[in-house]
Amino acid sequence: MDKFKVAILGCTGLVGQRFVQLLANHPFFEIEALVASEKSAGRKYYEVTKWVIESEIPENIRDMRVIALDPDKLPKVDLVFSALPADIAKIIEPEFARRGFIVISNASNERLEPDVPLIVPEINLDHLKLIEVQRKKRNWKGVLVKNPNCTTIILTLSLKPLLDEFGIEKVVVTTMQAISGAGIGSDAVLGMQIVDNIIPFIKGEEEKVENESLKILGQFTGSEIKWINFMITATTTRVPVLDGHLESVYVELGKEVEIDDVIKVFEKFSVEKSLKKFGLPTAPEKPIVLRNEIDRPQPRLDRMEGNGMSVVIGRIRKVKGVKNAIKYLVLGHNVIRGAAGNTVLIGEVLTKLMPELIT
Amino acid sequence: MDKFKVAILGCTGLVGQRFVQLLANHPFFEIEALVASEKSAGRKYYEVTKWVIESEIPENIRDMRVIALDPDKLPKVDLVFSALPADIAKIIEPEFARRGFIVISNASNERLEPDVPLIVPEINLDHLKLIEVQRKKRNWKGVLVKNPNCTTIILTLSLKPLLDEFGIEKVVVTTMQAISGAGIGSDAVLGMQIVDNIIPFIKGEEEKVENESLKILGQFTGSEIKWINFMITATTTRVPVLDGHLESVYVELGKEVEIDDVIKVFEKFSVEKSLKKFGLPTAPEKPIVLRNEIDRPQPRLDRMEGNGMSVVIGRIRKVKGVKNAIKYLVLGHNVIRGAAGNTVLIGEVLTKLMPELIT
Amino acid sequence: MDKFKVAILGCTGLVGQRFVQLLANHPFFEIEALVASEKSAGRKYYEVTKWVIESEIPENIRDMRVIALDPDKLPKVDLVFSALPADIAKIIEPEFARRGFIVISNASNERLEPDVPLIVPEINLDHLKLIEVQRKKRNWKGVLVKNPNCTTIILTLSLKPLLDEFGIEKVVVTTMQAISGAGIGSDAVLGMQIVDNIIPFIKGEEEKVENESLKILGQFTGSEIKWINFMITATTTRVPVLDGHLESVYVELGKEVEIDDVIKVFEKFSVEKSLKKFGLPTAPEKPIVLRNEIDRPQPRLDRMEGNGMSVVIGRIRKVKGVKNAIKYLVLGHNVIRGAAGNTVLIGEVLTKLMPELIT
Amino acid sequence: MDKFKVAILGCTGLVGQRFVQLLANHPFFEIEALVASEKSAGRKYYEVTKWVIESEIPENIRDMRVIALDPDKLPKVDLVFSALPADIAKIIEPEFARRGFIVISNASNERLEPDVPLIVPEINLDHLKLIEVQRKKRNWKGVLVKNPNCTTIILTLSLKPLLDEFGIEKVVVTTMQAISGAGIGSDAVLGMQIVDNIIPFIKGEEEKVENESLKILGQFTGSEIKWINFMITATTTRVPVLDGHLESVYVELGKEVEIDDVIKVFEKFSVEKSLKKFGLPTAPEKPIVLRNEIDRPQPRLDRMEGNGMSVVIGRIRKVKGVKNAIKYLVLGHNVIRGAAGNTVLIGEVLTKLMPELIT
Repeated sequence: MDKFKVAILGCTGLVGQRFVQLLANHPFFEIEALVASEKSAGRKYYEVTKWVIESEIPENIRDMRVIALDPDKLPKVDLVFSALPADIAKIIEPEFARRGFIVISNASNERLEPDVPLIVPEINLDHLKLIEVQRKKRNWKGVLVKNPNCTTIILTLSLKPLLDEFGIEKVVVTTMQAISGAGIGSDAVLGMQIVDNIIPFIKGEEEKVENESLKILGQFTGSEIKWINFMITATTTRVPVLDGHLESVYVELGKEVEIDDVIKVFEKFSVEKSLKKFGLPTAPEKPIVLRNEIDRPQPRLDRMEGNGMSVVIGRIRKVKGVKNAIKYLVLGHNVIRGAAGNTVLIGEVLTKLMPELIT
Repeated sequence: MDKFKVAILGCTGLVGQRFVQLLANHPFFEIEALVASEKSAGRKYYEVTKWVIESEIPENIRDMRVIALDPDKLPKVDLVFSALPADIAKIIEPEFARRGFIVISNASNERLEPDVPLIVPEINLDHLKLIEVQRKKRNWKGVLVKNPNCTTIILTLSLKPLLDEFGIEKVVVTTMQAISGAGIGSDAVLGMQIVDNIIPFIKGEEEKVENESLKILGQFTGSEIKWINFMITATTTRVPVLDGHLESVYVELGKEVEIDDVIKVFEKFSVEKSLKKFGLPTAPEKPIVLRNEIDRPQPRLDRMEGNGMSVVIGRIRKVKGVKNAIKYLVLGHNVIRGAAGNTVLIGEVLTKLMPELIT
Repeated sequence: MDKFKVAILGCTGLVGQRFVQLLANHPFFEIEALVASEKSAGRKYYEVTKWVIESEIPENIRDMRVIALDPDKLPKVDLVFSALPADIAKIIEPEFARRGFIVISNASNERLEPDVPLIVPEINLDHLKLIEVQRKKRNWKGVLVKNPNCTTIILTLSLKPLLDEFGIEKVVVTTMQAISGAGIGSDAVLGMQIVDNIIPFIKGEEEKVENESLKILGQFTGSEIKWINFMITATTTRVPVLDGHLESVYVELGKEVEIDDVIKVFEKFSVEKSLKKFGLPTAPEKPIVLRNEIDRPQPRLDRMEGNGMSVVIGRIRKVKGVKNAIKYLVLGHNVIRGAAGNTVLIGEVLTKLMPELIT
Repeated sequence: MDKFKVAILGCTGLVGQRFVQLLANHPFFEIEALVASEKSAGRKYYEVTKWVIESEIPENIRDMRVIALDPDKLPKVDLVFSALPADIAKIIEPEFARRGFIVISNASNERLEPDVPLIVPEINLDHLKLIEVQRKKRNWKGVLVKNPNCTTIILTLSLKPLLDEFGIEKVVVTTMQAISGAGIGSDAVLGMQIVDNIIPFIKGEEEKVENESLKILGQFTGSEIKWINFMITATTTRVPVLDGHLESVYVELGKEVEIDDVIKVFEKFSVEKSLKKFGLPTAPEKPIVLRNEIDRPQPRLDRMEGNGMSVVIGRIRKVKGVKNAIKYLVLGHNVIRGAAGNTVLIGEVLTKLMPELIT
């Protein structure tokens, strides 16, 4: 089989590095273009990249020349994965889409636009049908699909089974987020800020969680996404952990439940919604992994579950004094499931399961 | 003035070290006895102590001989401060009290007993009147007063002003707790467990927060404490921070409020309830310090506020979708305000403001 | 092929966990017995193990019953890998060897005994011939072979090529050692000791480096090891790193050299001495990996090189003012190459390349 | 007494913050001007400063307006303390000196110029006489005095007593340096780079140590500094520690010595060379503090010794096999003794002890 050719926009940043790692030897995809800012253009990938993730730069990518970010000069590719900063993405991504490129983007711009699909494949694949709405409305040959905020992906993977089975009335979530979430650019968390410390604020994050969750869990009506309606409030913090966002979740459900029922619902979802059965290489066998130990999930021990694509749930408890409430912890790898991995999985879905949408 | 003589039980552990630091040059108190386990007895303090806090062992304490834990052999002292482990404290503290010692203890045993005062001085000084109930009931010459759980002290200092002014219906709290909270004994957090990691479980902690809060914020009826009645649920985690517990608090109040009102209530409490005006050396000028910066409180920068005795509150926000709810972060030094410092402050109150209770 | 049956003594500690990880699906070896202290005996492995390494307990080991440490009750196995503490090992390992077991041990006792082989397979395989000397002298049916100190293994792998080609006159080494090196037992490094800190002392470590290096690099004369003769001095420190010992090495060679020559010597050694060509599964393709980047090796990025069995050398420089001196940094995974991995590799050598020595 | 008016160039960076902290309530000095880049000019100090050190911005400085870096617009001040980046300092500092300002600078430019004093006050106060040489040579009304590299200051404070008493032939030093040394600007160490890691390279640092040490320890001949002549080689690394550089030092002395003699020499130096007796507020009582414990100095426990102005030496040992060699560890606070504190101390010396040099 011929591989689909892909480009990576913003290839030198932290999410860009994960894209490279996931795509360098991908069975469906082949990296055709590494795209970065003007100042990196023309140089070899290894020369312009401050590589900070655990494995080395893949051999076949190391010496590839980076090209400049310019929609008119991108070679023909089947998919464009974007890890651009939102302020640049906002301007340039539509230009790529207008010229016919299929852009699947991790940048935060336009995520809430009514005609932009915001996808967690195991949750809302059907939202991809917005693509037709978008193309018509914007008169684009290409399309712009969005990967949600990392924290939100992890959270909604845990909420979706509860919502479907029990209904949700209220969610109160506090997150402990890894420093990789801030990247290695101008917003990077400095060592001086985070050693022996917590920073209880992440710009724009709480709003993203509160808004994007409702859209992701919403319904596609045929012409738009009708946001789900429940109360959700988030407090997001930065902790001295390299990778893996841990979230403490309190949920008031639509009815009183027993913990065993909750466990069953998570397990059932994990089996039924797994995309592994369709042969998608980045899909984890189990999108949700449950742990029984009293002190899990832990970021260092659990973040690579399912090659970083599973979320791990533990400590599911009832809440004394509120019959319909439960609480639990959920962990996910913020750069894999929360960013590059989920984006690649969207690409796999589009090329293998819904090719008609992008032709 | 002659100083009150004090003993420190469990002087070599982490809380014991803070007791030593706070009491070595205290204007009211003089360390008469350093008490530890049999195996340390007879040796010099510096020889048996794995000192891990930032200043050195005070010069005048360094060479003091440690004595064994035995109620029959303790020299006459005016106050006994206890930092014993709960399992030992449970057995031995009543023996000290029976023999006439005034024991103010940080150990978790008996905190919920109906005749045991559980004190945060700025909140519930009047609960100290339980002392008379206790002595009568137990027929003790001495008394046993308890310092609450560290996380609970910090939380309740933030809840009390809200409770008094607005009422409280529901509290959902997630904590990020420093490793010093686990001490340096057999429950200590290992480096291997916590570097690049979070442990989302602390044994018994959530129950302590949920129960002790309701007692501390309760009413003394003349013969007992009537617990306050609101719903409270906690998730407690351990993070790679040396000192300072950070708590993310969601509160549904008794009525809808504006943020400015909340700020005023905190500020008013901080002025009115400060015990500094009574000349208590360990009392902070402001028991509550508010910070306006968007990214505070932070453990490393704020934990020593008020010499570690203030709690620092920041990021007070309204909650979209729940009229009567607010959320905020509160930070306190877990070993000072949360343990040794609060306990010493109780001692200052008893000797200076309520001497009649202990004679 | 039938697999060799092996036992792991001290299976619950940190090195024991790595043994389990390396041996659970080993092509030559099969775990027949998991041995730990009396209090763990009879229970399932997962119940008695505080697992702290990144992957999970292997499925096929999780529910195995641990047996008590007793030479008379160990089932028949072909090899015994020991990760016992030195004080226990000192007493019990000889008992196993006396009863005929082939014991390959990571414990520090007896390493310097004249009839005990102290092996880094790529350096001194011929020292295994001491086995015959030992059996004769001690009249044992079994044998005791030792794995060297972790820091020393990493250091000597870098020194051996230099020694052979240029001679060595003087070595001054300062190490920055990971906290996993202290294990998770009573000597474990506490979080309170190591967050935002360095401990510039590791008990017994400097002596181990200074002595064991000279034995490992020594010559087998037919009846004993003649230690190599050069000056070596070490300063060993503990840093807040999970895995991977980094060593800053200053060497005065036997003659003046150019950096290019040094590089060639390392590369040649790495090719010629690799045991991969003999099909040993734990042997790395390259025992020495060189890195050109100005800021490598780094523990987090380089410790898993060669599945944790390669040492990584970087920043090779000449020393201004001393013609025959060079300096460089070398890094190795202290628990894999420095402990369990090197020990397993010795086992692979004994069973595959030198079976006559253990029959 | 009227205070001397001072300006701080580069007031918002990490060293600048320490200058502010040390000078805000200084008995001799009064901050007259806070100087930073154009983009901060006109705004309040707290608005333009990402404050990362443990205390708060001093009350009296918080609202001061920052002024732009322009030699022609600086108000008249008695001293200018510079914490500028070297590339800017190189251009602008001479302009200030030319216009008559007394500039004491922490920037690395010109440190090795023959007519520039490079001062550690307890070591080489007499080098300040270079000021006359410089003014004559450069025809400046003002002057430029340099603070040495942080690592070098700490090292040379430990070497000077040894040099004077025993002579020095060879020094091999490996450093473990705090992340604050890289500041919070564009060279800052990112959290992603340093959590669970060491970076074994600091740009330009090894050369600074090797060169500046020889100048600092050199002799003023009346017209120039004659560098001392011994071999010195350094390996410098970055570790996950907030403040405090730890250095592992191997020294071959001019003769064989006993450890007791070394201790005496350090103690004698510490008493005799202390500048505290001249009433200099920033001078520590003891420039060198010795610790007997087997595991000290440790950055977190010892860096604030002497308010961050003492260096702490421990683990002094003889070296087996080299009669005249010793080894030890020395620690100092890199931003206080290594930068702002040492610079302020030079200012105190110039204004109080050698006022004739700057008039």
